Amino acid sequence: MKAKVSIIMGSTSDLPVMEKAAKVLNDFKIPFEINALSAHRTPEQVEKFAKNAKENGIQAIIAGAGMAAHLPGVIAAMTSIPVIGVPIKASLDGMDALLSIAQMPPGIPVATVGINGAMNAGILAAQILAVGDADLQEAVIEFKEGLKEKIVKANEELSTVKYDYKTN
Amino acid sequence: MKAKVSIIMGSTSDLPVMEKAAKVLNDFKIPFEINALSAHRTPEQVEKFAKNAKENGIQAIIAGAGMAAHLPGVIAAMTSIPVIGVPIKASLDGMDALLSIAQMPPGIPVATVGINGAMNAGILAAQILAVGDADLQEAVIEFKEGLKEKIVKANEELSTVKYDYKTN
Amino acid sequence: MKAKVSIIMGSTSDLPVMEKAAKVLNDFKIPFEINALSAHRTPEQVEKFAKNAKENGIQAIIAGAGMAAHLPGVIAAMTSIPVIGVPIKASLDGMDALLSIAQMPPGIPVATVGINGAMNAGILAAQILAVGDADLQEAVIEFKEGLKEKIVKANEELSTVKYDYKTN
Amino acid sequence: MKAKVSIIMGSTSDLPVMEKAAKVLNDFKIPFEINALSAHRTPEQVEKFAKNAKENGIQAIIAGAGMAAHLPGVIAAMTSIPVIGVPIKASLDGMDALLSIAQMPPGIPVATVGINGAMNAGILAAQILAVGDADLQEAVIEFKEGLKEKIVKANEELSTVKYDYKTN
Amino acid sequence: MKAKVSIIMGSTSDLPVMEKAAKVLNDFKIPFEINALSAHRTPEQVEKFAKNAKENGIQAIIAGAGMAAHLPGVIAAMTSIPVIGVPIKASLDGMDALLSIAQMPPGIPVATVGINGAMNAGILAAQILAVGDADLQEAVIEFKEGLKEKIVKANEELSTVKYDYKTN
Amino acid sequence: MKAKVSIIMGSTSDLPVMEKAAKVLNDFKIPFEINALSAHRTPEQVEKFAKNAKENGIQAIIAGAGMAAHLPGVIAAMTSIPVIGVPIKASLDGMDALLSIAQMPPGIPVATVGINGAMNAGILAAQILAVGDADLQEAVIEFKEGLKEKIVKANEELSTVKYDYKTN
Amino acid sequence: MKAKVSIIMGSTSDLPVMEKAAKVLNDFKIPFEINALSAHRTPEQVEKFAKNAKENGIQAIIAGAGMAAHLPGVIAAMTSIPVIGVPIKASLDGMDALLSIAQMPPGIPVATVGINGAMNAGILAAQILAVGDADLQEAVIEFKEGLKEKIVKANEELSTVKYDYKTN
Amino acid sequence: MKAKVSIIMGSTSDLPVMEKAAKVLNDFKIPFEINALSAHRTPEQVEKFAKNAKENGIQAIIAGAGMAAHLPGVIAAMTSIPVIGVPIKASLDGMDALLSIAQMPPGIPVATVGINGAMNAGILAAQILAVGDADLQEAVIEFKEGLKEKIVKANEELSTVKYDYKTN
Repeated sequence: MKAKVSIIMGSTSDLPVMEKAAKVLNDFKIPFEINALSAHRTPEQVEKFAKNAKENGIQAIIAGAGMAAHLPGVIAAMTSIPVIGVPIKASLDGMDALLSIAQMPPGIPVATVGINGAMNAGILAAQILAVGDADLQEAVIEFKEGLKEKIVKANEELSTVKYDYKTN
Repeated sequence: MKAKVSIIMGSTSDLPVMEKAAKVLNDFKIPFEINALSAHRTPEQVEKFAKNAKENGIQAIIAGAGMAAHLPGVIAAMTSIPVIGVPIKASLDGMDALLSIAQMPPGIPVATVGINGAMNAGILAAQILAVGDADLQEAVIEFKEGLKEKIVKANEELSTVKYDYKTN
Repeated sequence: MKAKVSIIMGSTSDLPVMEKAAKVLNDFKIPFEINALSAHRTPEQVEKFAKNAKENGIQAIIAGAGMAAHLPGVIAAMTSIPVIGVPIKASLDGMDALLSIAQMPPGIPVATVGINGAMNAGILAAQILAVGDADLQEAVIEFKEGLKEKIVKANEELSTVKYDYKTN
Repeated sequence: MKAKVSIIMGSTSDLPVMEKAAKVLNDFKIPFEINALSAHRTPEQVEKFAKNAKENGIQAIIAGAGMAAHLPGVIAAMTSIPVIGVPIKASLDGMDALLSIAQMPPGIPVATVGINGAMNAGILAAQILAVGDADLQEAVIEFKEGLKEKIVKANEELSTVKYDYKTN
Repeated sequence: MKAKVSIIMGSTSDLPVMEKAAKVLNDFKIPFEINALSAHRTPEQVEKFAKNAKENGIQAIIAGAGMAAHLPGVIAAMTSIPVIGVPIKASLDGMDALLSIAQMPPGIPVATVGINGAMNAGILAAQILAVGDADLQEAVIEFKEGLKEKIVKANEELSTVKYDYKTN
Repeated sequence: MKAKVSIIMGSTSDLPVMEKAAKVLNDFKIPFEINALSAHRTPEQVEKFAKNAKENGIQAIIAGAGMAAHLPGVIAAMTSIPVIGVPIKASLDGMDALLSIAQMPPGIPVATVGINGAMNAGILAAQILAVGDADLQEAVIEFKEGLKEKIVKANEELSTVKYDYKTN
Repeated sequence: MKAKVSIIMGSTSDLPVMEKAAKVLNDFKIPFEINALSAHRTPEQVEKFAKNAKENGIQAIIAGAGMAAHLPGVIAAMTSIPVIGVPIKASLDGMDALLSIAQMPPGIPVATVGINGAMNAGILAAQILAVGDADLQEAVIEFKEGLKEKIVKANEELSTVKYDYKTN
Repeated sequence: MKAKVSIIMGSTSDLPVMEKAAKVLNDFKIPFEINALSAHRTPEQVEKFAKNAKENGIQAIIAGAGMAAHLPGVIAAMTSIPVIGVPIKASLDGMDALLSIAQMPPGIPVATVGINGAMNAGILAAQILAVGDADLQEAVIEFKEGLKEKIVKANEELSTVKYDYKTN
C-alpha cells in the first residue's frame, strides 16, 4: 500500500492538532504517511520530499505549522501537487500562522483551512482525491450526511432544556 | 465543451478581482463558467447550483466574496466538490472576508487563498484537476517554471540600479 | 402556547452561552423555542425553518454561531423577520464570529450583539416584540429599572472597602 | 404625519453615510426624522430625546457614530425602544466604532449593523416595525425579492465577459 | 475631610483592578471616594455625579470600564474636571475598552492609561493635583525615586543567576 | 511671558497634527512653547528638557509621536509633570503609536488621547491647569458649551435634507 | 571590490522600498550587491545563494518581502550569516509580512526591522559589520550624530510657527 | 573574562523568558552579563550603561521588554552597538511589545525577534559576534546542524503513531 496523502508537521508538538487529519484519512481508507519536516531546520529534506512527492504517488500534501508558518508555502513552491495548509495556534491565537500560510504571493497557492483545522484539511484532501475517484466521492457525500446526525442529537439534547415558556 | 470549473461571485463589483481566476483557467485551457450568485440574495439559486454542480461535470468551484463572506462556505455545505474561497477586500482590508471564509467549522472545509488572491485560486483549481490529468499536470509544472522568468527579468532590472559601492 | 421567538444554535456546545437568551425570554414570559440548526451541516432544515418561521408565528429569531459564523446571515437571507446574531467565542477571542455576523452586505441586515452577548439578544428580542405590545413594553421598562439595583448593591459593597483616606 | 423612526448622528460629516438609512425608510414610506445629537457635546439633548422618544411615537432609533462611538449605547440606556447602531468609519477602518457599539454590557443591547451599514440599519428598522404591521411586512418581503434582480443583472453582465475556454 | 479624587466603576467586578488606584491615592494621602456608577444602567446618577463633582471639591475623576467602555467618556462630556479612563480587560484582551475610551471625538478628551492600568491612573491623578500643590509634587518625585529600588532589588536577584560564562 | 505648557514632537512632519494642540492653548490664552525633540535622535536634549521642565514653570507636557512612539513615555520617566501623549498615525493606522504610548508599565503613566487627537491633548492640558486656576476653569466650561453650537448648526443643515416621508 | 552585504528581494516592485537600504550602505562605503530571489518562485537559486554567501564574503544579508513573507526566514534557515528581514507593506498594512518575518520558530532568528524599514536594515547591517571594523564603527557613530541635525532643523522650522501665546 | 554580550530586562518577572538567551550564550561559551534596567524607572542608569557599553567591550546587546516596550529602542538610541529586542508577552498577547520594539523610526534600528523569542535573540547575538570570529562561526553552523536532530527524533516519535491506513 502506497501513501496517497502526506501529512507533514514541523515538530511533534503539532501532533495533537495534526492527528485529526490522520484520523479523517484513515476513516476514508486513504493510505497516508506522517512525517516531521521543518522548513527552517531541515530545508534539504523538505526539498527532497517536495520534489519526489509526485513520483512517489502522493496526490495531496497536508502541512501544518505555527508562528511564522513557512512550511506549507515552501513546499508548495517546489511541487505541482495541491498543498493544504493548517495554521497551528502557537502564539497570537494563531493569527500569525494564518497570515503566514494564506497570504501567499501570486503563483504559489496554499489551500488554507482554519486555525487548528486539521480535521478539515483531511476532508479537503479526500475531496481533492475524490475528483478522480467515484468511490471516494461516494464516501465524502456519506460523510457529509453523517454530519447531520450530530445536529439531530444536539436537538434532542436541547429538547431536555426546560423553561416555563419554552414551547417545544 | 462543458465547464469543469465554476467561478462564482456575489456581484459584478467583484469581477476585477475574480477575472484573474478566469484568465488562469483560460491559459490552462480548462473549460469554465462564470456566474453571479449571492448566498444572501439568491439562496435558492445557490442551492440549485451547488446540488447540481457535480452532475453538471464541475470538478472544482472558485467562490469569491467580501465582508461577511458566506458564499464559499454555504456552497461547500451543499456539495462534495472542493470549494476554493477568495476573500475579497471590501472593508477592514479584507480581514473580515478572510476570517469569514477560512474559519469554517469542522466538517465543511473551504480551501482559502489570500485576500484578493483570485489568480492563486485559478492555479489551485488547475492543481486539483491535475490530480487525475497527466497533461494538465505537465502544464502546471510548466507554469511554475515560467514564474522564474519573472524573477530573472527582475534581476536584470536590478542590475541597472547604480551605486558607487554596488559590486555587480 | 405558540413560540414567538426562536433561538437557534449550531451545536449544543453553544448552549451555555445561548441559554442566557432563553432565561431572559422566560423571565419576560415570552413563549420561545430552542433548536439546533447548522448553516453548514443541515442547510435544508435551515431553509425550511427560515421560510416557515413567519407563518409559524415567530416574530424574532436569535441565532448564535462561532468562528466563520454564517448561521445568522444565512437565515436573515431567507426571511423578513428580524434576526439577532450572537457571535460566540470559539477562536480568535470571538473576533472572527463578530465580523462574520456584523459585516453583512447591503440588503440583509443582522442585528448583532456583543461577543457571547446572548442575554442582550434576549432583551433585544423583547424590545422588538414590545413595539406592538404595551404590556411587554412595561416589562422591558421595569427590567431596565431593575438593572439599577445591581449598581446600588455594588455601591454598598464598595462602601465596605476601607482606606485611611477614603472619605465616604 | 408623525415620525416612527428617528435617525440620529453626531455631526453632519456622518450624513453621507447615514442618509442611506433615510433613503430606505423613505422607500418603505415609513415616516422618519433626522437629527444631530452628540453623546458628548449635547448630553442633555440626548437624554431629553431618548426619554421622550416613546411618547413621541418613535418605534425604532437608528444612531450612527464613529471612533469611540458612544451615542447608540447611551441612547439605548435611556429608552426601551430598540436602538440600531451604525459604526461609522472615521479611524482604524471603523473597528473602534464597531467595538464601541457592539460590545455593550449585559442589560443594554444595541442592534449593531456592519461598518457604514446605514442602508441595512434602515432595512432592520423596517423589519422591526413590520412585526406589528402586515402591510409593511409585505413591503419588506418585496424588497428582499428585489435584491435578486441585481444579481440577475450581474449575471447578464458576466455573460458578456469573453474567454476562449469560457463555456456559457 | 473632603474627597479630592473620585474613583468610579460600573460594577464591583471591576474592584480588583480599580482598587490599585485607591491604594495609590491612599499612599499619597489624597482624600478620595469610590462609587459604582454605570453609564448604561444609572445614567441619571452619572449625570448628577458629573455635574456636581466640581462644587463637591473633586479635582480629578478616575473612571474604569470594560467592553464598550462608555463611562469615562460620558462623564468627561458633563464636567470640566480632568477624567482619567482605565480600560478594563473583560473581552478581546481589553482592546475594545481601550478603543472605546481613547478614541474620543474632538472636544471631549479622556486621559487614557493602559489596559487594567489603575495604578497608573492613581499616579496620574496625583500628578494632576500636584500641579497646584508643592507638597504633593514632592511626594510624586519621591514616589518615582522609589521605583528605582525595585530595579535595584531586581538586579540583586539577577546576580544570583549562575552560568559558566556569566561575568558578573 | 513664560510657557506653562510645552508641546514637543519628534519631527516637523508631525506639525500638521500637533498644531491643533497649539491652536487650542492659544485660544485658552495659555502660554506655551513648541519644540522638536526625539527620544531616539536627541536623547540628551530630551533628558535636559524633561529634568528642567518643572523649574522652567512647565505644568503640563504634550508629546506627539508615531510608530514605536517612545517620546511621551521617555519624558514621563524623567519628570513628575503630567505628560499627555498623542499617538500620531504614521503606519498601521496609528495602532502601533497608540499601544506604544498607552501601554506604559506601572509607575509611569502617560495620559493618552486618541490617534491624531492633538486638539483633545490641548483641551486636556487646559483642564489640568484649570485645577488650580478658577478663570481657566471658566474658560474650559465655556469652551464645552461652545461645542453644542456645532451640533445646533449640524441640525440646521440636516433640516434642509428633503425626503417625502421626512417629518420635520 | 567584493560585496560584504547582500540585499535581496522577491520582485522589483519592492525596489522603491529596498533601495533605501542600498543608499545607506553606499553612504557607509560598504560594498554590496542587489538581487531578486524568490523563496517561492526560485527556491533553488535561493538555496544556492544562501549556501554560498559566506564563502563569497557576505557578512550580512538584508531580505525584503511582503504578504506571507518567507524569504528572510528561508534564507536564515540555510546560512549562519545574520539575516535582516524587512517586512514590506503589500496588504493588511504590512502586518502579515511583519508576523511572517518576526515570528520565527526557536533556532532560526531573523533580525526584523519595522514595516518598510529598509533604511534601518541598512544601518543595522552597518552596525553588525562594525563589530569587527573600528573605522566603520566611527562612521556609524558619526551617522547617529548626524540624525540630530535633522531635529535641530526641525526646531528652527518650528520657531517660525506664530501664535499670540507662543513663548519662544 | 569580560562580557561580550549584555542581556538587560526591565524587571525580574522577565527572567523566565530572558534566561533562554543566557542559556544560548552560555552554550556558545560567549561571556555575558545580565542586568535589570528600566527605560522608565532608571533612565540615568540606562544612559550610563548604553554610553559605556562599547568601551566595556560589549559587542551586542539583548534587551527584553513588555507592553509599551521602550527599553530596546531607548538603548539603541544611545549606542552604535547592535541592539536585539525581545518583545515580552505581558498584555495583548505581546502585540503591543512587538510593535513598540519593531516599528522604530528611521535612523535607530532594533533587531527584533519574535514574541518571547529570547532563545533566538541569543542565537542572533552569536551570529553577529561570529562575523569577526571564525571559531564562533563554526559553533553557529554546528548549532544549526543540531536542530535537525530534534526533527529526526520527532520523526521517530511519529513512526509510533498507528493507523490502519498509515503506510510507513
